[in-house]
Amino acid sequence: MNQIKIVALVAFILTAPTFASNSLIPVSKETKEMAVSLRDKAIKDDSAYEILKSLTTEVGARHPGTPGEKAGIEWGINKLKALGFDKVYTEDVKMNGWVRGIETAEVLIPSYQKLTITALGRSKSTPEGGLEAQIVHFESYADLEKAADGSLKGKIAFISNRMERFKNGAGYGRANIARSKGHELAAKKGAEALLIRSIGTDDHRNPHTGATNVAMGYTMVPAVALSNPDADQLVRLIGYGHSPKIRLNIQTKDLGAIVTKNVIGEMTGRELPNEVVVIGGHLDSWDLGTGAVDDGAGVAIAMATATLIKNNTEMRPRRTIRVILWGAEELGLIGARAYAKAREADGTIANHVIGSESDFGAGPVYGLQSSDNISENAMHVVDTMAGLMGELGVTRRSGNTSGGPDMMPLAALGVPALNLMQDGTDYFDLHHTPDDTFDKVNPEHMRQNVAAWTVFAFIAAEWPGSFK
Amino acid sequence: MNQIKIVALVAFILTAPTFASNSLIPVSKETKEMAVSLRDKAIKDDSAYEILKSLTTEVGARHPGTPGEKAGIEWGINKLKALGFDKVYTEDVKMNGWVRGIETAEVLIPSYQKLTITALGRSKSTPEGGLEAQIVHFESYADLEKAADGSLKGKIAFISNRMERFKNGAGYGRANIARSKGHELAAKKGAEALLIRSIGTDDHRNPHTGATNVAMGYTMVPAVALSNPDADQLVRLIGYGHSPKIRLNIQTKDLGAIVTKNVIGEMTGRELPNEVVVIGGHLDSWDLGTGAVDDGAGVAIAMATATLIKNNTEMRPRRTIRVILWGAEELGLIGARAYAKAREADGTIANHVIGSESDFGAGPVYGLQSSDNISENAMHVVDTMAGLMGELGVTRRSGNTSGGPDMMPLAALGVPALNLMQDGTDYFDLHHTPDDTFDKVNPEHMRQNVAAWTVFAFIAAEWPGSFK
Repeated sequence: MNQIKIVALVAFILTAPTFASNSLIPVSKETKEMAVSLRDKAIKDDSAYEILKSLTTEVGARHPGTPGEKAGIEWGINKLKALGFDKVYTEDVKMNGWVRGIETAEVLIPSYQKLTITALGRSKSTPEGGLEAQIVHFESYADLEKAADGSLKGKIAFISNRMERFKNGAGYGRANIARSKGHELAAKKGAEALLIRSIGTDDHRNPHTGATNVAMGYTMVPAVALSNPDADQLVRLIGYGHSPKIRLNIQTKDLGAIVTKNVIGEMTGRELPNEVVVIGGHLDSWDLGTGAVDDGAGVAIAMATATLIKNNTEMRPRRTIRVILWGAEELGLIGARAYAKAREADGTIANHVIGSESDFGAGPVYGLQSSDNISENAMHVVDTMAGLMGELGVTRRSGNTSGGPDMMPLAALGVPALNLMQDGTDYFDLHHTPDDTFDKVNPEHMRQNVAAWTVFAFIAAEWPGSFK
Repeated sequence: MNQIKIVALVAFILTAPTFASNSLIPVSKETKEMAVSLRDKAIKDDSAYEILKSLTTEVGARHPGTPGEKAGIEWGINKLKALGFDKVYTEDVKMNGWVRGIETAEVLIPSYQKLTITALGRSKSTPEGGLEAQIVHFESYADLEKAADGSLKGKIAFISNRMERFKNGAGYGRANIARSKGHELAAKKGAEALLIRSIGTDDHRNPHTGATNVAMGYTMVPAVALSNPDADQLVRLIGYGHSPKIRLNIQTKDLGAIVTKNVIGEMTGRELPNEVVVIGGHLDSWDLGTGAVDDGAGVAIAMATATLIKNNTEMRPRRTIRVILWGAEELGLIGARAYAKAREADGTIANHVIGSESDFGAGPVYGLQSSDNISENAMHVVDTMAGLMGELGVTRRSGNTSGGPDMMPLAALGVPALNLMQDGTDYFDLHHTPDDTFDKVNPEHMRQNVAAWTVFAFIAAEWPGSFK
């Protein structure tokens, strides 16, 4: 099998995307039978649900730089050890911390009304005690772009477009520019602050926070999200001909340099221990909820998947299954970028046979997508995985993938990836809100996820060929 | 017709509940045809939805003693005048005001976690800066009753039972004792504070406030509701064997003597102007939302009903339709009690021919119930109303009724009442929470309500007989 590894490594070095690295190696009957057996055990196993319950209940929110994150890292180490992983270790990652403090807003004119808001990631503070200003309404980021530079002096720019609901979350990217770059645009137009409708699909008084495009320090102006009902309220007030004046008080803090961790657990491969199949979720969460669907679910699914394979196979699979609980995903894939950079530097990137992250909630898996750099000769393995997931309601899907947010830095370095596509119809009702709590998770869906992940992880670790 | 009125008055004085006050007087063909015509206009008319939109958007929350309540009263007067009511007036009602201030809670042990809470009506403050104490869990009010008096010294009593969901809201009354009287029981047991699971059926991080059994001053200990997900979280923590310690900071204020108002609009009867059919909703709301389903919807339905009848009949109906926008319902039917007391004192109670309040959200009407004091000879009128509402999906229902919360003091004085039963399946998802906002209201349901109310109000005002 070493030969295959060497060929794969050569393929990586040449970075020839269409280079077929090996002749077609079938997935053995035994491997398929074992995958089916594991899948059928997983569909009756509540381990992932129980792991998620423990994380979200005993730890809660896990925002970088808070005691919750620290408790989450401890929890991860202890849980991986308790589950019997062969190796458990952490890797430090330097980053810049940021936390929210006071955040209040009220309509002052035409009538006093409290607004439900939250600061976006790395939002600058308002002056102490808040600022008072009229809001100026733009239906989209594109509309704010059309305003003359400097024209919003003394005003607050308000962007009101609403994210659309799709099963695959397609509405997110489109709406998100207001959150990530709105603060720069508002500053350019002279505004005192940016107010956006939450990037979310629900109708509850729970605003959605989320990252801006700022890596350290602060946004250019205070950047704040309104809950959907509050955004509707401002739009209606403006529709009546009012020019709402609001008071906005946001106090946040740049924590400066802090250290987060990737927490890693491995089931060591019996034949090719240096070759790794990467699965995982991100351990950090936003601070408003308890990080159940984002991304405690992914953490729990990955931990339960590896544990189920270990507990139900006589020997370990051929390759190592590396469960990575990524650090500081929400603030810009910080743990994942550091991990990939270190593997690029030490030359171990090529050992990453294939990977995927579960980070799209706790809905059931419905599709299996593969990255374009998987060779034609390996495609049948992905098709076989999809076939064995068929009874779970999973179908093979077209389209390229990086395998999830924290896989992006690895995918950019050529690591093959799969995407176990989850039904995200309701995901953006909860995403980044106080409502992201354990009670929203369906145990049946958690079992279905682990069943699908088990098929993928076991076959990827057992099939002896290269995906490239 | 005066004869009937005198007979009715005699019947009232004798307070003989089974006394048939008049021979059977049919509902005329013309009256029925007009009711159908009005119903069919109402089902296409968005007036109520538009009135509700204006109230909830331009005014917002309307809690007694706040600027919002004052703005709501102004809005009510102006809107009734603008709609062309014949008489618009207000009646002052003395009461004791209470407002919330700071309200925060956090789990300190076993891990730091923010809790979503809100103070119950007239909750006492904690010491400044809050109190820290372990919680002691009781699955119900009845379980807390079983604890030894004085046994909870230095602890917080936590009652976790969950309200059940029913179309008719039957779960509310059963769960509500924890909210109304829990503070007294907690104090008796020696607890520092009372923490209850919100009386509500949703799963959002929005706690449900509501009145306690305290009319002025404060509860005996601070009395606080947790959102359902937060209550679940504490129950799970306890299930893991932890003894959660929390910090609770509640700062509230007794406003002392304040004045609220019942706002009244009348369409004067063409023949029997002193005889009144009472319809309405309550104008006040809790402070957390904007009082859309509780009870802006009722206010809007009543205003639109009377307006629709006025605008689509050549002459006014025989009797006066009195739309009462009740004051301070949430703090204990304060406006309604004062209204009834004044009518008892001045002898005009007997002029109240029949009444009903819309105060169960914005769901469609599905049933028509009548009070037991309606005479056998008048029952056919109620049956006829129900029949004409049949196309709207309304059926005749058994069971006694007081005609809604603010009708209770009048019903207690013998005023006949109907209940236009609304589908409240989702009502307690929103009730008394920040989520009680306009976006939750379905315009089709608002039209259906007005159609049903128009049938009732028009026939009650036009049919010449007595309901007693």
